[in-house]
Amino acid sequence: MALFDILSAAMIFSSDTDHESVVSISVYAAVLCLCIVVGHFLGENRWVNESITAMLIGCSIGTIILFSSKGRSSHILRFDEELFFIYLLPPIIFNAGFQVKKKQFFHNFLNIMFFGVVGVFISFAIISAGSWWLFPKIGFNGLSARDYLALGTIFASTDTVCTLRVLHQDENPRLYSLVFGEGVVNDATSVVLFNAIQNMAVYKLEGWAAVHVIGDFLYLFSTSTILGIATGLLTAYALKTPYFGRHSTDREIALMVLMAYLSYMLAELLQLSGILTVFLCGIVMSHYAQHNVRDNSRTTTRHIFATLSFMAETFIFLYVGMDALDIEKWKTTKTRCWKTSFGIYSIILFLVMLGRAAFVFPLYALFNHMSSSSEGSLITFKHQVIIWWAGLMRGAVSVALAFSQFTVYGVTWDPVHATMITSTVVVVLFSTLVFGCVTKPLISILLPHHARENNQPHDDSANNDVTFPLLSLDGSAATAILQAKSSLSLMLARPVHTIHAYWRRFDDEYMRPVFGGPF
Amino acid sequence: MALFDILSAAMIFSSDTDHESVVSISVYAAVLCLCIVVGHFLGENRWVNESITAMLIGCSIGTIILFSSKGRSSHILRFDEELFFIYLLPPIIFNAGFQVKKKQFFHNFLNIMFFGVVGVFISFAIISAGSWWLFPKIGFNGLSARDYLALGTIFASTDTVCTLRVLHQDENPRLYSLVFGEGVVNDATSVVLFNAIQNMAVYKLEGWAAVHVIGDFLYLFSTSTILGIATGLLTAYALKTPYFGRHSTDREIALMVLMAYLSYMLAELLQLSGILTVFLCGIVMSHYAQHNVRDNSRTTTRHIFATLSFMAETFIFLYVGMDALDIEKWKTTKTRCWKTSFGIYSIILFLVMLGRAAFVFPLYALFNHMSSSSEGSLITFKHQVIIWWAGLMRGAVSVALAFSQFTVYGVTWDPVHATMITSTVVVVLFSTLVFGCVTKPLISILLPHHARENNQPHDDSANNDVTFPLLSLDGSAATAILQAKSSLSLMLARPVHTIHAYWRRFDDEYMRPVFGGPF
Repeated sequence: MALFDILSAAMIFSSDTDHESVVSISVYAAVLCLCIVVGHFLGENRWVNESITAMLIGCSIGTIILFSSKGRSSHILRFDEELFFIYLLPPIIFNAGFQVKKKQFFHNFLNIMFFGVVGVFISFAIISAGSWWLFPKIGFNGLSARDYLALGTIFASTDTVCTLRVLHQDENPRLYSLVFGEGVVNDATSVVLFNAIQNMAVYKLEGWAAVHVIGDFLYLFSTSTILGIATGLLTAYALKTPYFGRHSTDREIALMVLMAYLSYMLAELLQLSGILTVFLCGIVMSHYAQHNVRDNSRTTTRHIFATLSFMAETFIFLYVGMDALDIEKWKTTKTRCWKTSFGIYSIILFLVMLGRAAFVFPLYALFNHMSSSSEGSLITFKHQVIIWWAGLMRGAVSVALAFSQFTVYGVTWDPVHATMITSTVVVVLFSTLVFGCVTKPLISILLPHHARENNQPHDDSANNDVTFPLLSLDGSAATAILQAKSSLSLMLARPVHTIHAYWRRFDDEYMRPVFGGPF
Repeated sequence: MALFDILSAAMIFSSDTDHESVVSISVYAAVLCLCIVVGHFLGENRWVNESITAMLIGCSIGTIILFSSKGRSSHILRFDEELFFIYLLPPIIFNAGFQVKKKQFFHNFLNIMFFGVVGVFISFAIISAGSWWLFPKIGFNGLSARDYLALGTIFASTDTVCTLRVLHQDENPRLYSLVFGEGVVNDATSVVLFNAIQNMAVYKLEGWAAVHVIGDFLYLFSTSTILGIATGLLTAYALKTPYFGRHSTDREIALMVLMAYLSYMLAELLQLSGILTVFLCGIVMSHYAQHNVRDNSRTTTRHIFATLSFMAETFIFLYVGMDALDIEKWKTTKTRCWKTSFGIYSIILFLVMLGRAAFVFPLYALFNHMSSSSEGSLITFKHQVIIWWAGLMRGAVSVALAFSQFTVYGVTWDPVHATMITSTVVVVLFSTLVFGCVTKPLISILLPHHARENNQPHDDSANNDVTFPLLSLDGSAATAILQAKSSLSLMLARPVHTIHAYWRRFDDEYMRPVFGGPF
């Protein structure tokens, strides 16, 4: 078996520092190829998707390495936050912004922002408080107050990548944009909140800490947004100048890729949220810049971004899978007793489910209540269940944050911290494998195929017909309620449309002539 | 000036290890964008091309950093062999193989191989012997015998990237394929020879050393070729299986990119010549694999490879330009006296010119002599001058080899070694800037535009008409010579065509049905 030979070679060479990076790159490239081919074979399968395949392959390779190195190590590369945050995350998030259906996204904009931001705060509060209350009960002590707060943000960040593989944009555009948009905002919020908590010790003002965190958060959010939009517009303008069009495709492509990456890097450099910046840069670029380049460049950039994103995602899952068997961490963990370990995993998983349920169902109920008067944009209970479920998976962001909090350059000798790392990896593996496997069947049960094949707006109005009579059972009461909530309704539903209309006019009159776009 | 702000920020942060890579990546991304835009502005210029632009921008940025850091350092990233050989070189060479006009290349195959391999050996001998003889004369001592041998290979590797920017494939297909093909074989030969010399100390057999070097060389050459072809065919086969075609473009693209990279990495892992392997992999992929993918994937992969190559090239020139002002090396150099320094630079430049002249003119004279009977494939003197000139530039491979020989991880405290590094950088800068600037005008003087716009086969026959009478001035003597050399001629010219015909038949009957291709 050729792979095994390579891995044996990898083990022989990996003591040699000169060859280490060559070996690990070769192995990763080979294993990524394997994932692509195997993922392709399993493409038609009901339960498995590519993320799960990559993770399982990662676990298997980890096992092989573990045996061939006689228990010394299980991975070629140590999990490296830098690698993750500098090279792997930006293409995924940028591509997400670049490929998103902007109409749906902006239509649900307030909704998405509200759920992304408020949701993280609620999840964070529940997970932090819950773990602080429950961990000592099962005999697991030793975490500081800040560790508990960090734990809240670590497990508040959802991994929507896996769900989006299952939920197709064309079949469920609305659901997709809700889940996806919330996921991006959620990731950004978690990372920003995590950084805010890391900085908290500096203030040392217990009372003002919350205000500081929220102030930090708002500052980071707005500056990141501005930076992302500015970079996107700059790129569009550079490509629009009549000048570039007639020249080489390679140059256009290089400029787009570099500027996209630069936006992320600049945000990181200025200690803003790179995720948010690069996401908005992606949206702006696909709205303007994409129309200023040649047909060839357009096709190519679309596929380059999609391919990079695909490779980065597969790589991450492979990585997490391989890291799960990191024997050193398992040896360092405090809890030799399996009961305590399982206790920790169960508590975290339970809190994750509870934390998400605590904002999805109440907030959507509120949201439906607000917007039912305006038009057919209700989110049925079935949709809510899917949205809830889709956000239960925890992924690479959680792992990266956990490593950042509990290790120093990926290494820790503190048993309590090592336990938190292994728990994070277990929760990520379990949620991705188990919750991930169930997602596909769950969606096909909750949204039967005939319903999904319909157009979504049509589907919505059908749902509306079902729910509206329930609300208007008692005409007079309904009228009273409608009156009462009309002011609130204006706050949420109306402005979105008004703003949207204003924006359209502004875009057509001022933006497109300068930055390019379809006329 | 925004750039200046970033650079100041870079200087502030670069003491902080956490931010170092973020800063350097941001700066490089920003500067690459600048190079693209400036290079575009200067695109129509007669003298300057993009490589030179990148180098000059690199120098300017180096100067800015030097001043803003008050003379402490001039670069963000230290020149790193690993970065160069692992990330920057593979895309350039692969793209070269992928985009080369295969018909022309194979037509001149023996020619290219002969010049590439024999040429390097001749250049190497002249530069090693010349520097060994001349350096002590100007009072520069301290290099070991192996250093002189290494110097020969360092300056035997040409940098054709710069010339190829000027010499367009469509205008001069034959000249392009000769210069380009020789350049690739030359690079591969130099690197292989360099490695063979590095290993020489192990043998400790002075007499057998040459045999060992040649044996090593032949082994590396053949195994690298086999590996490259095998990887290319494997990729083509994987994409051909009916299975893949119907599926996603992203997966096809990812597989091609990964396999291409894997071929290089595997070669490096097995200590073969990655350059040769990835080049052949590129040729095989463009011959077979490219026909097994969708139209979108085909367009995208072509542009991806071209863009990556373009970015890597620009990056290298920028890098070399920035590294030229590395103040530490200049301080460490032995020769405070500018006379000795200029002596060293002049000797090296002279030897480089002599070393190339010593094989280009004699070998092409021999070649013309051999093949004049068979058909119109003569290389006129003007072409020879261009071929000679095009190979005078020294580039990133030289710098990388010099760093590998004379530094430990980019740092050296030995004044003699530091002098060799600065000399290499100066020679590279000078040859690229001065020789590079002259190339464009030289080509337009030697090959006026009306001649270049003709089709090359047509052009060749025109050249043939000019040169043939000269050879057949004396009919009887010519006949005698023709008779005498017919056996030699068969060795060189005939087999190429016979082999080519056999190969075509074999390709159509056996290869294409299995691995794909146009029917």
